[in-house]
Amino acid sequence: MRKIHVIGIGAGDPDQLTLQAVKALRGTDVFFLLDKGEVKADLTRLRRDMLDTHVPEGTYRVVEARDPERDRSAGGAAYSPAVGDWRSARADIYERLIAEELGEDETGAFLVWGDPSLYDSTLAILEEVLERGAVAFAYDVVPGISSVSALVARHRTGLNRVARPVQITTGRRLAEGFPEGVDDVVVMLDAHQTFRQYAGGNGADGANGTDGADIDIYWGAYLGTPDEILVSGPLAEAAPRIERLRAEARERKGWIMDTYLLRRRTSGR
Amino acid sequence: MRKIHVIGIGAGDPDQLTLQAVKALRGTDVFFLLDKGEVKADLTRLRRDMLDTHVPEGTYRVVEARDPERDRSAGGAAYSPAVGDWRSARADIYERLIAEELGEDETGAFLVWGDPSLYDSTLAILEEVLERGAVAFAYDVVPGISSVSALVARHRTGLNRVARPVQITTGRRLAEGFPEGVDDVVVMLDAHQTFRQYAGGNGADGANGTDGADIDIYWGAYLGTPDEILVSGPLAEAAPRIERLRAEARERKGWIMDTYLLRRRTSGR
Repeated sequence: MRKIHVIGIGAGDPDQLTLQAVKALRGTDVFFLLDKGEVKADLTRLRRDMLDTHVPEGTYRVVEARDPERDRSAGGAAYSPAVGDWRSARADIYERLIAEELGEDETGAFLVWGDPSLYDSTLAILEEVLERGAVAFAYDVVPGISSVSALVARHRTGLNRVARPVQITTGRRLAEGFPEGVDDVVVMLDAHQTFRQYAGGNGADGANGTDGADIDIYWGAYLGTPDEILVSGPLAEAAPRIERLRAEARERKGWIMDTYLLRRRTSGR
Repeated sequence: MRKIHVIGIGAGDPDQLTLQAVKALRGTDVFFLLDKGEVKADLTRLRRDMLDTHVPEGTYRVVEARDPERDRSAGGAAYSPAVGDWRSARADIYERLIAEELGEDETGAFLVWGDPSLYDSTLAILEEVLERGAVAFAYDVVPGISSVSALVARHRTGLNRVARPVQITTGRRLAEGFPEGVDDVVVMLDAHQTFRQYAGGNGADGANGTDGADIDIYWGAYLGTPDEILVSGPLAEAAPRIERLRAEARERKGWIMDTYLLRRRTSGR
C-alpha cells in the first residue's frame, strides 16, 4: 500500500519544522513539489533547502509539477465553483503523480507551508483522489506552525483575549463586513488589503459599529524569513504604512505572503 | 539584561517540538515549571522528559512553583475579574521567580503547552510584570503546535472549509449560542461538554437554527500522547459516546485535556 505524508513545514523559518516533520521527511521516498509559477520559485528553493539539510542525499526523489492556474476572474458567488474546478484539475495531477511516480510500497510526501489545516487544499484533494478509486493509498497529517501562530509570536501577543473568541477568515469575507460577535479577527488570503476598509473615514462598516478608530492591526509579511516585515499599531495610522511597505516589497520580490490580526479595542464586555 | 523565552512545546507529543524550540531549550539557563496541582503532575513529568531528551545535563536549573488557585466559583459576568485577580496573583509569582531565580545575564524559559498565543496567559502576565517595573527583562515567543492543529491533523481534516471562516472559542461562549456567521467552531476550555447542548432534541439553540441534526463533531483528548482518544461523526450519535469515554478517562487519569471542532453541514452557500 502506498503511503503519503502531508507535512506542515511552518510559515517560512526552516527552524519551525517540528521533530515529527523531520522524521516524516526522513521516511519519505518521493517528495512532490508543486510550483505555482515563477514568482514562487523562492518557495520551491526553500523547500529544497529543507530537504538538503534534513534528509541524506540519495535516499529520496523529488518530482516537481506545475499547479493549474486558478480562474481568479470569477468573483462573488462564483468563487466556490471556480475553486471546485481548480481543485478537480489539481486532483487530476495528484492522482497521476501518485499512480505514476510512487511505487506500491513507497512513501510520498506533500510539503505544505504553515499548517495543512488552514486554507490549504491538499487534504481535500487527496480525499477526492481516494474517492475516485483509481489509486489507493494511506495518508497522515503532520501539523505545522501556521502563519497565524508565527504572526502573533513575532508580535508577542495572543490570538485571543481572556475568555474571548477569535475568528480566522479571508480578505473576501472581511470585505463583506467585520465579523459578528468577535473583536479579534485574523485575515488570510487578502490580496486587496481589505483592512483599509476599516481604517476610518469612509463609513463602509458603520452598520457594525466599526469606524476604524478603535482597531489595532498586527501585520506581517514573509514571516520567519530574512525578508520578514512587521507592523503594528492603531489601524488608522498603520494602514498607509503597511500599504507602502507591502507595495515596495511586492515590487522587489515579485510576490508577497502576508497575514494580519485586527483587534478591536473594547471596554472589557 | 535578563532574557526570557516563552516556548510553545506542542499539544502533548514530544516530537511536536520545533527545531526552534529545541534551540531555545538549549539556550536556557533556568526553566520555570508552574504546577497547577497534583492532577497535572503528569504534565510536569512530560516537560522534564523533554529537557532530559534535548538539553545536556548540568547546563540548566529547574525551578518549580505552585500556580495560585483560580476562583472557579465566580460565574457569568464575574468571570473576567476573577481571571484578572488570578493573573495578578500569578504576576506576583512570576516577578519573584524572575527577580530571585534568574541571574542578571541569564536566560529563563516558560514552557507552554500548545501555542502560547491560544488561551494561555503567560504573555499577558509577563507584560504585567514589566509594567510594574520592579524587574526588567527582554522576552521572545517561540510558536508551538496548538491542540487545535493537533486535533484536526489527527482527524485529517481542515479547520476551515474552502474560503470560509473558522472561529475558536470557549465552552462558556458556546453555551451562550452557536457563534454567528460561522459553521466551523473550535471549542477549548470546555469543562462542561457544552456540545451536548447542540446534540438535538432540547431546542436550546433553536434561535440560531441549530437543531443538532446538521452538525458533525471532531473530538480529541490527550492529543499526541499514548492516552489519545479520538471520536468523530454526527454530533447526535457521537455526543453520548464522547460523554462516556471522557468520564471514564477522567476517572482513570484524574484529569483530562480535550478540545473539539463543531462543523455545521451546509449546502455550500
